[in-house]
Amino acid sequence: MKKLFIQEVAPRDGFQNEARFIDTEDKIAFVDQLSLCGYAKIEVTSFTSPRAIPALKDAEAVMHRLHRNPDVVYTVLVPNMRGAERAMSCGVDEINLVMSVSETHNLSNLRMSRERSFEQLAAVIEEVRNTDTAINVSLSTVFGCPMQGDIEQSDVLGWIDRFAQLGVNGVTLCDTTGMAYPTQVGSLFSTVIERFSGLQITAHFHNTRGMALANTVTALQAGVERFDSSLGGLGGCPYAPGASGNVTTEDLVHMLELMGYDTGVDLAAILAISRTLAPLIGHDVNSQTLAAGTRMSLHPVPEYVQQLQHSQ
Amino acid sequence: MKKLFIQEVAPRDGFQNEARFIDTEDKIAFVDQLSLCGYAKIEVTSFTSPRAIPALKDAEAVMHRLHRNPDVVYTVLVPNMRGAERAMSCGVDEINLVMSVSETHNLSNLRMSRERSFEQLAAVIEEVRNTDTAINVSLSTVFGCPMQGDIEQSDVLGWIDRFAQLGVNGVTLCDTTGMAYPTQVGSLFSTVIERFSGLQITAHFHNTRGMALANTVTALQAGVERFDSSLGGLGGCPYAPGASGNVTTEDLVHMLELMGYDTGVDLAAILAISRTLAPLIGHDVNSQTLAAGTRMSLHPVPEYVQQLQHSQ
Repeated sequence: MKKLFIQEVAPRDGFQNEARFIDTEDKIAFVDQLSLCGYAKIEVTSFTSPRAIPALKDAEAVMHRLHRNPDVVYTVLVPNMRGAERAMSCGVDEINLVMSVSETHNLSNLRMSRERSFEQLAAVIEEVRNTDTAINVSLSTVFGCPMQGDIEQSDVLGWIDRFAQLGVNGVTLCDTTGMAYPTQVGSLFSTVIERFSGLQITAHFHNTRGMALANTVTALQAGVERFDSSLGGLGGCPYAPGASGNVTTEDLVHMLELMGYDTGVDLAAILAISRTLAPLIGHDVNSQTLAAGTRMSLHPVPEYVQQLQHSQ
Repeated sequence: MKKLFIQEVAPRDGFQNEARFIDTEDKIAFVDQLSLCGYAKIEVTSFTSPRAIPALKDAEAVMHRLHRNPDVVYTVLVPNMRGAERAMSCGVDEINLVMSVSETHNLSNLRMSRERSFEQLAAVIEEVRNTDTAINVSLSTVFGCPMQGDIEQSDVLGWIDRFAQLGVNGVTLCDTTGMAYPTQVGSLFSTVIERFSGLQITAHFHNTRGMALANTVTALQAGVERFDSSLGGLGGCPYAPGASGNVTTEDLVHMLELMGYDTGVDLAAILAISRTLAPLIGHDVNSQTLAAGTRMSLHPVPEYVQQLQHSQ
């Protein structure tokens, strides 16, 4: 059985998108539960300005007080040097830097050019590189920009290369608004994995147009071993308020385990946690496996069928 | 561009599952609209007992009064000889027979053993074989039975073989309750297409556990060219009332066209029709592409981004 690495983003990418503030104690309890489920990595929070993202204003408290499992990499989103300093003071295992490969999306999301973002992130990488803290870079809109449209594969490769040269440990290719499609995914990841064999490459899919698991299939075929996902599908898409966001962890793990992969994740355990999310966040989660049950959650044989069986 | 065949099942599989009776005029108008969208086949109705399925009690009226497009194959579900006679009297292009490869599911759904079903269907095939009407057989629960669990691939192959020997034109492998997963789908369809090269083989997926498009990817890789789907995802799963049912046509076509296939289907036209379904059936449809827009439905660049662009 081939081993895969499942990286849970709900505590950061999910809670950040919730209208209701999730209490610090609830966040810690949630991450502590996740820590026992076999994830390779958990994105705990974001060291962003509390004014910009009040939902995660308790980043230090959550990071300091959670009960770490030594088998889990605890990563946090870091937008800039100030965020990196705050994260390092909490002893995170990894910082996750972010910029967009689309100029328009970077201007829209980070309010600066890609070159300016790269300069700032390069300075952070320079500071962190020689510490015990690992560095991942998440590249947004790799499979398409919701304002600009298609992104050239050569542009994506160019940005990965620039970060690889700075010595980062991993790069995540993010389908930020669900524009990826299976053949595109297979082609890009095949090229990236061949060209950047020294980097940990993660696929981060959104299910906005229903293709997240289809994209997962071709990513697997291209050799991807690391997948971001969000319990209950938490974390929406700002460009399509009614649409799905992050691929749902339990749906992803359910499929991968059926396909014979070893995800390490305890599906029954995460389904039990997912079931507690609706009351916590105040609305239904987006989980097909929770709604329908796992494939082998069989239904009882009705009595009239039993009678027919006996009368044969 | 490889040509695929998209077969719309909403008028039968969808409307059959609606609590609200869809007026005959509305059914006819719906099928007439679908007839102009480039589908290879449309499953119009079911010639079942009106007492068993009152939702489709107007089968003759719908079939007689629709405006046929000569490029579309109009097929109907037929459970038995009486249904076949009614269908033939309406001049259908194809009859679609159905039985389950799971004994328990066949007893549950058709209230008879598989052997008894086969005998009845064989008698229908004997009657219809030498007419202009084509014959398809839909095999239910091919990828798993919700009561019995796994189904042996050899059992599926055995049932296909028995129908192939009777001279049917096509066989549809149905994932009746969404138990199929990508590796299983690839393996089964590869074997079936190799072994039964004279049959038209259709994949009929449900999205109950989110895997319909992922299964489509491996079905394509195995050589499948024909796909059933339902506009707006109409048609639920009786075993999981809250869960998704049939794969949604617009989500399927959207993905296939992005992957470079020629589906023949006019995506904009079917999205426009899908948008009219909610008022007709009285509840929301299950359509990611309708909710989020197609991949290249781009969003305007916000004013502050335009200002940043100009100030660079």
